[in-house]
Amino acid sequence: MTLPSAAPSQQSGGVARVRPRDPRNQPTLALVGATGAVGSVMCELLSARMNVWGQIRLIASSRSVGRTVVCRGEPTVVVSLTPEVFDGVDVAMFDVPDEVSEHWAPVAVGRGAIVIDNSGAFRMDHDVPMVVPEINPEAARNRPKGIVANADCTTMAMIMAVAPLHREYGLRELVVASYQAVSGAGQGGVDTLRRQLDKVGDDAALGSRTGNVRRAVGDDLGPFPAPVALNVVPWSGTVADGGWSSDELRLRDETRKILGLPDLKVSATCVRVPVVTGHSVAVHAVFASEVDAAEAQDILRQAPGVVLVDDPAAGEFPMPIDAVGTDPTWVGRIRRAVDDPRALAFFVTGDNLRKGAALNTAQIGELLATELAAR
Amino acid sequence: MTLPSAAPSQQSGGVARVRPRDPRNQPTLALVGATGAVGSVMCELLSARMNVWGQIRLIASSRSVGRTVVCRGEPTVVVSLTPEVFDGVDVAMFDVPDEVSEHWAPVAVGRGAIVIDNSGAFRMDHDVPMVVPEINPEAARNRPKGIVANADCTTMAMIMAVAPLHREYGLRELVVASYQAVSGAGQGGVDTLRRQLDKVGDDAALGSRTGNVRRAVGDDLGPFPAPVALNVVPWSGTVADGGWSSDELRLRDETRKILGLPDLKVSATCVRVPVVTGHSVAVHAVFASEVDAAEAQDILRQAPGVVLVDDPAAGEFPMPIDAVGTDPTWVGRIRRAVDDPRALAFFVTGDNLRKGAALNTAQIGELLATELAAR
Repeated sequence: MTLPSAAPSQQSGGVARVRPRDPRNQPTLALVGATGAVGSVMCELLSARMNVWGQIRLIASSRSVGRTVVCRGEPTVVVSLTPEVFDGVDVAMFDVPDEVSEHWAPVAVGRGAIVIDNSGAFRMDHDVPMVVPEINPEAARNRPKGIVANADCTTMAMIMAVAPLHREYGLRELVVASYQAVSGAGQGGVDTLRRQLDKVGDDAALGSRTGNVRRAVGDDLGPFPAPVALNVVPWSGTVADGGWSSDELRLRDETRKILGLPDLKVSATCVRVPVVTGHSVAVHAVFASEVDAAEAQDILRQAPGVVLVDDPAAGEFPMPIDAVGTDPTWVGRIRRAVDDPRALAFFVTGDNLRKGAALNTAQIGELLATELAAR
Repeated sequence: MTLPSAAPSQQSGGVARVRPRDPRNQPTLALVGATGAVGSVMCELLSARMNVWGQIRLIASSRSVGRTVVCRGEPTVVVSLTPEVFDGVDVAMFDVPDEVSEHWAPVAVGRGAIVIDNSGAFRMDHDVPMVVPEINPEAARNRPKGIVANADCTTMAMIMAVAPLHREYGLRELVVASYQAVSGAGQGGVDTLRRQLDKVGDDAALGSRTGNVRRAVGDDLGPFPAPVALNVVPWSGTVADGGWSSDELRLRDETRKILGLPDLKVSATCVRVPVVTGHSVAVHAVFASEVDAAEAQDILRQAPGVVLVDDPAAGEFPMPIDAVGTDPTWVGRIRRAVDDPRALAFFVTGDNLRKGAALNTAQIGELLATELAAR
């Protein structure tokens, strides 16, 4: 399947991307948070994907203002975040912390832009659709607040595999355990793991059973509640009700919202692992009807944005070191529960900075650009 | 609760450990595989725990024969594996690969020893009990083949938390995802992670999103099917039916056997992570009756061999870097499923070389020594 925006026959109004490029007719894009972990990937993607944009404005915090970033081959000076910067902007992509989005997204909308927000600020707002173009592209058109939300990177990896199976079998329940990369916590997370690995690498005892990672790492925890090198940390997010973390409840709430299943049972455990980029999830999914593993493999083989990597005997299963830097979500280890003909277990890995963040934002942007061009 | 063997009032026959030590009256122990990853921990434990043994014979492969190992403060020369070495041995602990146990355990039994086997060779044999002294100590007395099996290290971590909850609520179903340390694959696994971390540490690009771990690591995979540094590998064991791995089915079969629940539903995903020692499991457990998170915490706080570490707001949850080198199994992140009053989610970490292997073997040995002393 191709994205709706890439199917010319459906677009009677003429699609910008299939006409010779005329910047005067193409929408203006603002990229807020252009120099962060996700923003940097976004610049790469905008340079590599079909060019649906006219002018692109790169916006960042005062620390980065004045820097020159190459985007689409053009050196572009990073400008500061002001209300006026959104004047004339058609679409504004926000890759910034929640509180920045919360304040500035409505400002951008007030100046006439449609906002695609990659923070958590608006995800659970009933008037803000959460869009995964391969799954619910139609939702992008109904945006009472002028804002479209991007799902969290862990939800994104899982939902790309779950949605096609739901369409076939009818999803009833999910039990999920995550293996989340440090770049999900931004560039600070990546830098922290790097420093910690240097420290434990200097301590020969840490190759043994008795090495003390806490002593080697000291207070250098970065954005994490504990050392992440040579460790797994069963916590991400803030403390929510009943012992759950905010990230675990978010995975549930976002999955329900994207699939339109408000009563879906979801039990998630979110765990940080010493991986640079690539979020993985072990999924146990229970459906309304009986499942078949070979048929499920076929469904996922044909699903848009998914690659099936499922031959354990040949050493083929989804892993972060292979999925990093790629667009699709990798799915494998598909097997029917021995004890339950309605349950499938599988393993999913996706690049949390690409499909988990920048790529999905770019795809939503292309949906909107197509819509604008059709006006 | 204390172990039955530590409760003198129950032992009318007189217990070796509470009498002044008389090596002539204490059973002779043979430790087969004394210089391996688990065997080395066993020597430490035998030196630190109450001394129930008379003579201890250290046995290893020809590579280690003649080495001197200090055990209980006594320099002991490692001898080779022959039938005669078991003459006069009361209890033989085997920490060796499956095929070595398969051949040599019956030889030891034939020479009069009771065998405690830490390999997978006899675990599923109906005539071989699988014993966790805190859970089913009585099973050690019924051993038609003269062999008692130790559970796999992943099963062990999980079952220590699951068994006390099962006694209260009645277990119906488990969905489990593991985070298994490299030392679960022996010293070769530890050495492999160490070498791989050195290699990726030399490659500055690997601190970034684009580094190529496969290129840095090359063919140096050790016992794993893929690089484990900066990665998670959703595979351990051999290929079994229906896409399951042997380790995943083993987790199910061993749990059923220890708990005496032959129809228990278990869906497991086994994943190797770049941790030296300390196996973790994310567990979603469904029970026959309704559960309460605070009550479950109380049950686990009082459970033998378990420590409750459950205060996320204070950064307290079970992690390998804290559990390594300790005896108990660490349990935390206990919460009731939002959507199912009969389901609990929790996270468990245990030292796979201690309770997951050597410690449990030592505890079974102490049960047997008590039994022998009572004769």
